[in-house]
Amino acid sequence: MSQGIKIVTIGGGSSYTPELIEGFIKRYNELPVKEIWLVDCEAGKEKLEIVGNLAKRMIEKAGVPITLYMTLNRREALKDADFVTTQFRVGLLQARIKDERIPLSHGMFGQETNGAGGLFKALRTIPVILEICKDIEELCPNAWLINFTNPAGIITEAVNRYSNIKRVVGLCNVPFDMHTAIAKIVERPRNEVHITMGGLNHMSYVTGVYVDGEDKTEYVLNRWGSQSMNNITGTEWNNAFVRELGAIPSPYHRYYYMQKESLEEAIIKFQQHGTRAETVKKLEDELFELYKDTSLKEKPKQLEKRGGAYYSDAACNLICSIYNDKGDIQVVNTINKGAMEELEYDEVVEVSAVITKNGPIPLAVGKLPKSAKSLVQQIKSFEVAACEAAVTGEYTKALYAMMINPLVASQKYAKIVLDELLEAHKDYLPQFFKEV
Amino acid sequence: MSQGIKIVTIGGGSSYTPELIEGFIKRYNELPVKEIWLVDCEAGKEKLEIVGNLAKRMIEKAGVPITLYMTLNRREALKDADFVTTQFRVGLLQARIKDERIPLSHGMFGQETNGAGGLFKALRTIPVILEICKDIEELCPNAWLINFTNPAGIITEAVNRYSNIKRVVGLCNVPFDMHTAIAKIVERPRNEVHITMGGLNHMSYVTGVYVDGEDKTEYVLNRWGSQSMNNITGTEWNNAFVRELGAIPSPYHRYYYMQKESLEEAIIKFQQHGTRAETVKKLEDELFELYKDTSLKEKPKQLEKRGGAYYSDAACNLICSIYNDKGDIQVVNTINKGAMEELEYDEVVEVSAVITKNGPIPLAVGKLPKSAKSLVQQIKSFEVAACEAAVTGEYTKALYAMMINPLVASQKYAKIVLDELLEAHKDYLPQFFKEV
Amino acid sequence: MSQGIKIVTIGGGSSYTPELIEGFIKRYNELPVKEIWLVDCEAGKEKLEIVGNLAKRMIEKAGVPITLYMTLNRREALKDADFVTTQFRVGLLQARIKDERIPLSHGMFGQETNGAGGLFKALRTIPVILEICKDIEELCPNAWLINFTNPAGIITEAVNRYSNIKRVVGLCNVPFDMHTAIAKIVERPRNEVHITMGGLNHMSYVTGVYVDGEDKTEYVLNRWGSQSMNNITGTEWNNAFVRELGAIPSPYHRYYYMQKESLEEAIIKFQQHGTRAETVKKLEDELFELYKDTSLKEKPKQLEKRGGAYYSDAACNLICSIYNDKGDIQVVNTINKGAMEELEYDEVVEVSAVITKNGPIPLAVGKLPKSAKSLVQQIKSFEVAACEAAVTGEYTKALYAMMINPLVASQKYAKIVLDELLEAHKDYLPQFFKEV
Amino acid sequence: MSQGIKIVTIGGGSSYTPELIEGFIKRYNELPVKEIWLVDCEAGKEKLEIVGNLAKRMIEKAGVPITLYMTLNRREALKDADFVTTQFRVGLLQARIKDERIPLSHGMFGQETNGAGGLFKALRTIPVILEICKDIEELCPNAWLINFTNPAGIITEAVNRYSNIKRVVGLCNVPFDMHTAIAKIVERPRNEVHITMGGLNHMSYVTGVYVDGEDKTEYVLNRWGSQSMNNITGTEWNNAFVRELGAIPSPYHRYYYMQKESLEEAIIKFQQHGTRAETVKKLEDELFELYKDTSLKEKPKQLEKRGGAYYSDAACNLICSIYNDKGDIQVVNTINKGAMEELEYDEVVEVSAVITKNGPIPLAVGKLPKSAKSLVQQIKSFEVAACEAAVTGEYTKALYAMMINPLVASQKYAKIVLDELLEAHKDYLPQFFKEV
Repeated sequence: MSQGIKIVTIGGGSSYTPELIEGFIKRYNELPVKEIWLVDCEAGKEKLEIVGNLAKRMIEKAGVPITLYMTLNRREALKDADFVTTQFRVGLLQARIKDERIPLSHGMFGQETNGAGGLFKALRTIPVILEICKDIEELCPNAWLINFTNPAGIITEAVNRYSNIKRVVGLCNVPFDMHTAIAKIVERPRNEVHITMGGLNHMSYVTGVYVDGEDKTEYVLNRWGSQSMNNITGTEWNNAFVRELGAIPSPYHRYYYMQKESLEEAIIKFQQHGTRAETVKKLEDELFELYKDTSLKEKPKQLEKRGGAYYSDAACNLICSIYNDKGDIQVVNTINKGAMEELEYDEVVEVSAVITKNGPIPLAVGKLPKSAKSLVQQIKSFEVAACEAAVTGEYTKALYAMMINPLVASQKYAKIVLDELLEAHKDYLPQFFKEV
Repeated sequence: MSQGIKIVTIGGGSSYTPELIEGFIKRYNELPVKEIWLVDCEAGKEKLEIVGNLAKRMIEKAGVPITLYMTLNRREALKDADFVTTQFRVGLLQARIKDERIPLSHGMFGQETNGAGGLFKALRTIPVILEICKDIEELCPNAWLINFTNPAGIITEAVNRYSNIKRVVGLCNVPFDMHTAIAKIVERPRNEVHITMGGLNHMSYVTGVYVDGEDKTEYVLNRWGSQSMNNITGTEWNNAFVRELGAIPSPYHRYYYMQKESLEEAIIKFQQHGTRAETVKKLEDELFELYKDTSLKEKPKQLEKRGGAYYSDAACNLICSIYNDKGDIQVVNTINKGAMEELEYDEVVEVSAVITKNGPIPLAVGKLPKSAKSLVQQIKSFEVAACEAAVTGEYTKALYAMMINPLVASQKYAKIVLDELLEAHKDYLPQFFKEV
Repeated sequence: MSQGIKIVTIGGGSSYTPELIEGFIKRYNELPVKEIWLVDCEAGKEKLEIVGNLAKRMIEKAGVPITLYMTLNRREALKDADFVTTQFRVGLLQARIKDERIPLSHGMFGQETNGAGGLFKALRTIPVILEICKDIEELCPNAWLINFTNPAGIITEAVNRYSNIKRVVGLCNVPFDMHTAIAKIVERPRNEVHITMGGLNHMSYVTGVYVDGEDKTEYVLNRWGSQSMNNITGTEWNNAFVRELGAIPSPYHRYYYMQKESLEEAIIKFQQHGTRAETVKKLEDELFELYKDTSLKEKPKQLEKRGGAYYSDAACNLICSIYNDKGDIQVVNTINKGAMEELEYDEVVEVSAVITKNGPIPLAVGKLPKSAKSLVQQIKSFEVAACEAAVTGEYTKALYAMMINPLVASQKYAKIVLDELLEAHKDYLPQFFKEV
Repeated sequence: MSQGIKIVTIGGGSSYTPELIEGFIKRYNELPVKEIWLVDCEAGKEKLEIVGNLAKRMIEKAGVPITLYMTLNRREALKDADFVTTQFRVGLLQARIKDERIPLSHGMFGQETNGAGGLFKALRTIPVILEICKDIEELCPNAWLINFTNPAGIITEAVNRYSNIKRVVGLCNVPFDMHTAIAKIVERPRNEVHITMGGLNHMSYVTGVYVDGEDKTEYVLNRWGSQSMNNITGTEWNNAFVRELGAIPSPYHRYYYMQKESLEEAIIKFQQHGTRAETVKKLEDELFELYKDTSLKEKPKQLEKRGGAYYSDAACNLICSIYNDKGDIQVVNTINKGAMEELEYDEVVEVSAVITKNGPIPLAVGKLPKSAKSLVQQIKSFEVAACEAAVTGEYTKALYAMMINPLVASQKYAKIVLDELLEAHKDYLPQFFKEV
């Protein structure tokens, strides 16, 4: 890194890329990026060009000496990279539409990070990320892989289990948003509020809130009840439940603790407006129209509506802390190493960690409530089963993963939905269609 | 016990009593019972007389020197008892009807051992069993309490947590039925087939099957797929799932792994035929008509249809093994003591145990599958929450127990059903309606 | 086994063999042994013949239809064996003399199952037992290996870790002797006293004593203080310590809790009388003189002085329970399977277990005292290190095993004694003297 | 703290105090101390005055607006304190002489933090620290208690178990010295070298070394073999052992892994030069002669020979990080909270932790080697037993603590030394001499 940092972004044609570019520009003084390589595949070529050109205009306007490259040749890009970020989507939004539509059409949750949809996104993504890992091992063995491709927890677990890459961190914007929401409750700026957080991606709880040396956890527990995120309908928590639980649930927990009503809403929405993926697709099309405008030289405001805001910012933050050995605390997906007794020593968890040049060191975030412990373990057993299914391509393992997922919870519909999704995603799941 | 054994049966007016009496008569040679005291409450007085008189006729016909007493005075009965069996139902079948009807009317499982119904049966029963424990402590401190009042796991956990009684064992007929079903698969008599079983009541798995010194677990796993019990509709297991799971699920697991279809069926049945409790009530009425017939001097065949057959036989078996220090292996609800790493050292588990004069010693039954481990822990967290709610009478704790139960999984309906059930069972839940 | 049981005894020339033969004769009715094969190596040929002929005379006198074979050909003997017992000593008593003499001459414990001596007995024995395991796998894959070659715990751990043999049980006479001593304290016959025991070989504690359904653990703890075994000098326990500990230590624990005085005594004894091995050798020579007497047709009384009495009886008992699927409780060395939380799931422990046709199933024997837990783990870490050293032949690993052993506890003397013992046992430790 | 920080130092008459004062002076800009209260008892009055006056001269010379108070009235001092540091010695060096002399005279380790000596220092100190805790609770409930009274681990454990004070941190200079030694090996400044450390006070291991984002643990393990501290004779580690161990032992580990030779040396030294305490006493007397010199206005160089250098610096560092919410990593004695699976969740460990305004948050420092795990647990079982003995004053518990300590390891000498030490320290151990 002596002559400046080389960043490679797989899935560079994503609509999120302007946020990422903005993040690097903003931090240039402490994070001297020399090269950014946006990589995409043939199918994403057009989007790559649109967003890549916007990125170039942004850099030019900012006047920082970053060189931006666009390429379909991943191996060329990876050579000697310092950081590799991944934000690709196998099968593009078309695939996500199926992940949502098929389960929903059988009265089952259809969502891209949980349940049947999350499983299929994992099944498509894992073989690709493992290929990327092999390339990294060969072409840039010292690079850090910063993954924010969803389902981020499962993808990071798969890298941990099935590749030789140790320098991997998974990222999500939920912890960032939780932190922000908590800061609002205690009426302090975000950076003056410490939180400890632990669990799994989209399944982590805030276990502690500290302000000015005082434990404000009880204070926040007593007020937690109406925080929600953009892309999740704002059903409120019954505060009595939160207090009894004794840890602060994330918005994604509503899929579990408010399963029935969430599903009812989702089905109604689906029947009235189609899938979330279709809405997103429309939004994306509009965004790319904007991006094409050569007078646009910064991240457009509209991107924030897209959902997943702060993902890229979280990534830049993390990269910056690793590069500068900052030792600040961030919530990341990394190997447990005993920080959470709820999960195995070698499993990937989402946990508060000190970020050093040598990567994240998880903090002892305390015990989860008894009921949360088992829920977290249940999801981890699903994640592991999903990884095994993705790697082996065995039908039985995929069925098993479906059936043990608490958002599926049906032998009958597990099979129906599994069979339809396998057929629908056939082109992206060669491991399940090997000739014998 | 030097002058013969004294048995006290709380809920002696139950329709199951003839099976219990038959069990003691059959075993008289090795289990010399001197006195059986059938105890019931005012509301059960009539049934007590009917069934007590049948019991007397049975004993007389058998020609064994057992004296049978009927009483509404529990404390008188308990004095110097050797074994106390509990099979009472607070609120009688009327209460069970509500436990089933109210949840089902909101599209939620209504069942007397799981979900909302199981919770309410526990809330009504725990205060009563703890009173009984106090009496035992005072009047027959060396007695063994053999509980088969449902939900047997939660009740035993409550005794373990909130009384001073250490000599308590919880019993269920499911392990017996599993053993029988497995014996059929390996085509051997029951007593030639060893099984190891572990988990929680209505949530335990067979982890090993051994015949003639050989491990037949794989063999049975490969064939498990259509075993069912009388009172559970016979949906079949997908054998691929069972093999991948690697442990043999019980019929009650279908509420979890086949949740959606089970619920659909249950709702249809409810809409067409009313609750299971109502069916049972009709059956019971018929049974008591039979019992009244003074020419009847043995357990009538019709009792077997009642569901829960072998409960009483299991109880007699257990009492016989304790009394004779047999050292045979039975599946019971008892304190874990480290036998199952999935659960806390001091929690009640359902597990294979050696039965000695000093009570059950659990066996190391091996690890449960990762996904089963978390499911078992989830149910245990519910059980503990149910105990706390029952003992404190706090609304918040009851709501919490509802919300963490995977058969409820709804904040909205948890509250609705909770409120209706509390109102419906008001008379039996004084702890929730204390004047402040 | 349909036509009678075939027993193979490796180290058949041992002076213990008459006890073993007596054990099989006594149990003939329930354990119909057809063939006993005594196997030994060239160096033990003469002893094999002496003891083998005595065995034949014993069988003849008893009038049971057992055929006895003597052979130096292990593979011939193993063919289709049902049970293989091992009681061999690599390097004979000459080696044991060195195991005791060399450490003692440097002021360190010299003893054949603990400390430096135990380590070297393990280093010599493990390669041989692993060869035997390979033969068993090939020639009698369904046989049970009953090991009582010392250090029995380490040898069983080595088989568990480094062979494919699953049907292995390690045995020791200490639990038997503890049981007997406890029975004396409660003044009841041995078979009316239940004990639960857990830990490691020569490092296990009695955690519970039950008589006639009553917990007598406190009673025995309050009286434990002067039980000793033949081959361990009778220093008494301070009963206050035992009570505070809360579990009953075995005689071998004095090496740890009375380390200094035991060592002082051992050194004085060594200086005055030489090693225990030399005493034993003299005793053995006398025994073999007796054995030669063709008029001797039974186990001579003098054998009981030998130390290790009841080893063979314990073996016959175990074999009998496996063969007959007895389901009784015995203390054996077997895989933990979670029974003791103090040790890993897959490690070999010495624990009360139910003996079935499918082998031992450990019982949940309860928690060890906090201080005992760590001691047991420390010894297990030594055992594992000893296994690794034996299998790899790496000097560093042997040094490490020495240094972590609490009876060595010296870097300086660890090296000195290690080097001397390696040189002294060169012929039996080829793995440490590989040409590079 | 709005108007400047108030520091209270119990044992203010200690010879270390000048180092502490220097620490506060140096850090004045970031740590605006307003008042320092040096507290001592009647017996320490003279020393308090000498060192207090030196402290005043130091502050005056530095020109910082800190006011220094000297008092024998602890309660007056504690009122509204922000930080309380403890460095007192019950019974002064006279007591330490006995802690060393009596065990050594029976051939046992005599040392003030380990073994019999450590136990007695704990027995004398714990009742006093618990009194201090009560005062803190009443007079300055928001204060942080920074303990560096030895044995620091046991004292912190006692506060954790037997007081209501949650804001307590124990400190030792060994981690600081280890860090320094490791920095030398990797040839980098101390602040560029990250270490992770875990275990117990005087029993912690470095589990990781990271420099510039690279894992240098192997590198240091391969070179660790001659690091020693001032007050521990410089026997070298056999590097082969360290490599096989896989974690870096501290100088105090030589008491365990080099027990025999350390004891031999200690006894020779004792016979030739008397106790270390006597040497220290001489040194102290010289120091106080120096301190009296009114021309001395800074910490004299000679203090560094005293042993325990950097203790006070470590304390200032910690206070500074808490006050400024620095988030840097320091090794402290604090509650485990699951960071180390080797020890209980609620036990005090010595561990790398992030230092925040809300106190230390332990890091997941990874697993200790199997053999180290058990050693650490063994010492913790001793620590807990020592706390119980100190609080109850029960002879049996003190005997138990002695016997389970691996540096005692003798029933016979445990009793002899215990009895002599109890008699010798009678005045400071009222809890053991209660009238019945």
